Amino acid sequence: MEKEIVAIVGSGLVGKSWAMLFASGGHEVRLFDSIPEVLAGTPKFIHDKLHALEAKGQLKAHKLNATEQCKLITAATSLADAVNGATYIQECTPENFEWKVKIFESIDKALNEVGNTRAYIGSSTSTIMPSKFIANYGIKDRMLIAHPINPPYFVKLVELVPSEWTKPDVTTHVRALLTSLGMKPIVMNKELPGFALNRVQYAILNETWRLVTDGILSVEDADIVMKEGLAPRYVFLGPLETAHLNADGFKDYCKRYGQVINDVSQDMGGIPLMTEDSCQEIDRQLQDMVPNDKLPERRNWRDENLAELATFKEKLGL
Amino acid sequence: MEKEIVAIVGSGLVGKSWAMLFASGGHEVRLFDSIPEVLAGTPKFIHDKLHALEAKGQLKAHKLNATEQCKLITAATSLADAVNGATYIQECTPENFEWKVKIFESIDKALNEVGNTRAYIGSSTSTIMPSKFIANYGIKDRMLIAHPINPPYFVKLVELVPSEWTKPDVTTHVRALLTSLGMKPIVMNKELPGFALNRVQYAILNETWRLVTDGILSVEDADIVMKEGLAPRYVFLGPLETAHLNADGFKDYCKRYGQVINDVSQDMGGIPLMTEDSCQEIDRQLQDMVPNDKLPERRNWRDENLAELATFKEKLGL
Repeated sequence: MEKEIVAIVGSGLVGKSWAMLFASGGHEVRLFDSIPEVLAGTPKFIHDKLHALEAKGQLKAHKLNATEQCKLITAATSLADAVNGATYIQECTPENFEWKVKIFESIDKALNEVGNTRAYIGSSTSTIMPSKFIANYGIKDRMLIAHPINPPYFVKLVELVPSEWTKPDVTTHVRALLTSLGMKPIVMNKELPGFALNRVQYAILNETWRLVTDGILSVEDADIVMKEGLAPRYVFLGPLETAHLNADGFKDYCKRYGQVINDVSQDMGGIPLMTEDSCQEIDRQLQDMVPNDKLPERRNWRDENLAELATFKEKLGL
Repeated sequence: MEKEIVAIVGSGLVGKSWAMLFASGGHEVRLFDSIPEVLAGTPKFIHDKLHALEAKGQLKAHKLNATEQCKLITAATSLADAVNGATYIQECTPENFEWKVKIFESIDKALNEVGNTRAYIGSSTSTIMPSKFIANYGIKDRMLIAHPINPPYFVKLVELVPSEWTKPDVTTHVRALLTSLGMKPIVMNKELPGFALNRVQYAILNETWRLVTDGILSVEDADIVMKEGLAPRYVFLGPLETAHLNADGFKDYCKRYGQVINDVSQDMGGIPLMTEDSCQEIDRQLQDMVPNDKLPERRNWRDENLAELATFKEKLGL
């Protein structure tokens, strides 16, 4: 892979993770944030984080050590400086429609200002479809969604969602670039609300919600269905390959279980609307498991486990 | 936990796994199968399996070694011999409605014959609701579904589904017994088609199927959504706790995302009917990944990974 010059626009947690990922591949990274105080804190955060990862044996990339990776990441004092000569731009600003429109207007303007007609642009948005905010800008044929999963340093999926205007070689290039970093990008051939991950996640949440609010399962038991039942195999096999292996191939699976799956699915009931009011009982049980004031601690625990799992899968060659 | 005398009815893969699980807890196990040739092969299979697990450091239970566990498992020459004095019976016969009815008739009869009015009975069925086959037998108040997940030795979930007749202390006792073996039983407060695991699995399969058959994702990419996106956290956290951690608690999650989840779900489309004909394209892509003649090899790979994952989670204290 040729070395890229990557501009990261927005230096929150996601922006910093992207910066570390690109540096792990030896790429030059320029971080920009419209809030100078936020940007000011990033070099030290990244320095400490990369060295902590190195100490735990969790640093990505095998050619560069933490100090070398740190040196690749600099802070840019303006958006124009960040994108000047950049070959790839990753936008990571807050999930707000009006802001997205504005930030892409600024990126378009800055690229014009510095005469950069080459850079490809990815947006980290998790919910906004590209056609909704990119239509009016000249960069629309070089732009796509590149939605990472939190925490991106340890979860490999990236959802690539081109718009109707995205040139095919943009998607191909970004997929290859992310793959070279050890990520697992997927490509959606058409934009859909929720992209792919959240559609599947919501299908799971809907049925889990119904099982609990209908009084069939406790919250703890509903979560065990996934943790101790389905997820162990899903770490290695997706749902389609799981089905393929659960019969004499996928055709046999559909022949044997297709009607049952349909019948059971018909029994599932309507799509729930999850509101603050309707979620009282689930929330009450969750507070017994993890009270709100323990959430930060539990998130750290989750992220530590995700890091351990990533190392575990690495060792198995996955 | 007091030592049980466990009768296993049906000595296929699931029956043998149950036998090894109960022996790991120091319980006396009697295996019975109506096909003598099938039963004849089980002692050697179990002996070899337990010693292989021991050699790999994967043997369950820490007080008894493989040889001691082996000694706890014997083959019974008749159903009456198997259930005579048994305190728990686990039924593991093939998934066929007529057979289930017959086998429960036989178990009821055998218990009467030997005057065993005490044994609790669990069925390993994955799809048949207890009310459909237990209504006519005297044992109905001591019986429930105890559905394990394949391979039960390494996947901890067991779905307990009492019928309307099951006495509450039966469910409580079986839950405690399985928990003492290191399993993670859940209790459904009402029987539902598909129980809990398959309802959630089918919700996932339906949306994954739609994404692929609508041409949005390739099979490989659709599986990556789960493998590299959702499953890593689901190994540690169920879907409800995941949501709880993805906002400032679950109420905040519902407030922020409830409407979006509903909107995206409305966009998902109808429940598909998976048939041999309609699955051609998915099957074609799956054959490129794992041709049918490589399925046994891939299943071994899956089970090896599940064993490794179980050890990994054990080490993290999960």
